[in-house]
Amino acid sequence: VLRVPDGRVVASTDLLVEGRHFRRDWSGPVDIGAKAAAQNMADIAAMGAVPTALLLGLATPGWLAADWVLDLVRGMLAECERAGATLAGGDVVSADAVMLAISALGDLAGRQPVTRQGARPGDLLAISGPVGWSAAGLALLASGAADRADLGADLAALVAAHRRPQPRYQAGPQAARCGATAMIDISDGLVADVGHVASASGVGFQIHAADLPGQAPLRAAAALLGDDWRDWALAGGEDHALAATFRAGQPQPDGWKVIGAAREGAGVLVDSQQGGRGGWDHFR
Amino acid sequence: VLRVPDGRVVASTDLLVEGRHFRRDWSGPVDIGAKAAAQNMADIAAMGAVPTALLLGLATPGWLAADWVLDLVRGMLAECERAGATLAGGDVVSADAVMLAISALGDLAGRQPVTRQGARPGDLLAISGPVGWSAAGLALLASGAADRADLGADLAALVAAHRRPQPRYQAGPQAARCGATAMIDISDGLVADVGHVASASGVGFQIHAADLPGQAPLRAAAALLGDDWRDWALAGGEDHALAATFRAGQPQPDGWKVIGAAREGAGVLVDSQQGGRGGWDHFR
Repeated sequence: VLRVPDGRVVASTDLLVEGRHFRRDWSGPVDIGAKAAAQNMADIAAMGAVPTALLLGLATPGWLAADWVLDLVRGMLAECERAGATLAGGDVVSADAVMLAISALGDLAGRQPVTRQGARPGDLLAISGPVGWSAAGLALLASGAADRADLGADLAALVAAHRRPQPRYQAGPQAARCGATAMIDISDGLVADVGHVASASGVGFQIHAADLPGQAPLRAAAALLGDDWRDWALAGGEDHALAATFRAGQPQPDGWKVIGAAREGAGVLVDSQQGGRGGWDHFR
Repeated sequence: VLRVPDGRVVASTDLLVEGRHFRRDWSGPVDIGAKAAAQNMADIAAMGAVPTALLLGLATPGWLAADWVLDLVRGMLAECERAGATLAGGDVVSADAVMLAISALGDLAGRQPVTRQGARPGDLLAISGPVGWSAAGLALLASGAADRADLGADLAALVAAHRRPQPRYQAGPQAARCGATAMIDISDGLVADVGHVASASGVGFQIHAADLPGQAPLRAAAALLGDDWRDWALAGGEDHALAATFRAGQPQPDGWKVIGAAREGAGVLVDSQQGGRGGWDHFR
């Protein structure tokens, strides 16, 4: 039984499957738990709500070490504490593979929920933090470069962002208070998720790649691996920054960076180039 | 975003794994969906709350027919309608086995939640419907007897109860209004679940098997299969009747049947015989 002073509750649910959403050989249980919690609480923040509670359904083979599960829960609890939420309950079943089913609840504190539908042509598009860091970190892990002793702080930050994103949950309610007209959690990739706002709102978007925040580490990783940093920034998911639209002429909230604008039409243009179906072409 | 007029929300979550919690060769998708919804909403009713919404996380192999999934959702929707709840959202992922992760939300409508902890010696123990029907239905299915053309209405009712239990959700809020001191959903078996109330409340229970409702079909199935009907009634789970305690001298709510009483001590006695660890001895 959870208090929801507002009289409305925001609810969201996600399934995470081993091998698809996480790898036990690349991430420890504390990070996997923290990341799973973060992903769900970012969904709540993207409505303009404050995450209040998580429920965890854990499917696990009998051979999985109890310590692994305890560390998973420790990671979830640590991330819940960052967000001000509690781990309120759950269920455990035996299964052939590890799977997490997380439901998150949140409170709107009297505000109207911000959806994907309210963007209008002329609205400014802003994001609450870097994008592409998690994807770049994954690329560093996949290439083996992440294991290098001389990795450096910038690249280590990318690997850390992959293992354990730290969404700014308060950016969601903050944007709602500042009149955000639409908002989404960037979980699939910037172009793909802004595309969801475009479809829901019946508008198009123009993104200026040069305005994207957090480019320096991405450029360093791209130089090392011979990749294009924009692929990560435009198509990489799982950073759980928020994207929101604001009426032009209104002041942006602190910590939000304008990266483009809504326009008449449909789809997402990046520097006048059309983003591909479901995201950014280079990534497909 | 769901309305919770009460300012508190009751939340519960369950995982159901194919082969463990359901079999696609014994139950169709409509029944599996309805049963999964019922199981979760019965948990909400057992707190004295009204189920308001479900979230469904579905893990499924790519080869599963889309019609199977649509029928699963149809079954959930039908059971939600019985309870007055909505299917509010969810998530779908690809996995090697079919798994359902269901979260249920409920509203207390101003009542205090009924927990497992409030039973006192002398309280009467009552249940909201038959127990053991689902287990007897499963036994009829496992033995092949369920396929007989001359099964008869009584035994067919047991098979139907296994495939698709129909909990009386309103019995939970009804018991709460009538001053229930403790309550639980009978999902693991009568003796096991009353044992959970015993532990949580610090009391013992005495159950009179002769007072159990719905014996006639159980006795008919037991005669056919050479089993003891009490094994099903005392240890069979998944009927999702509710068990609750009431102060002696108070009138029982309609549809509830007194089957015993709380006493000083611990554990659960059935006709003066000690129930085994975790349930009823014969079942182990």
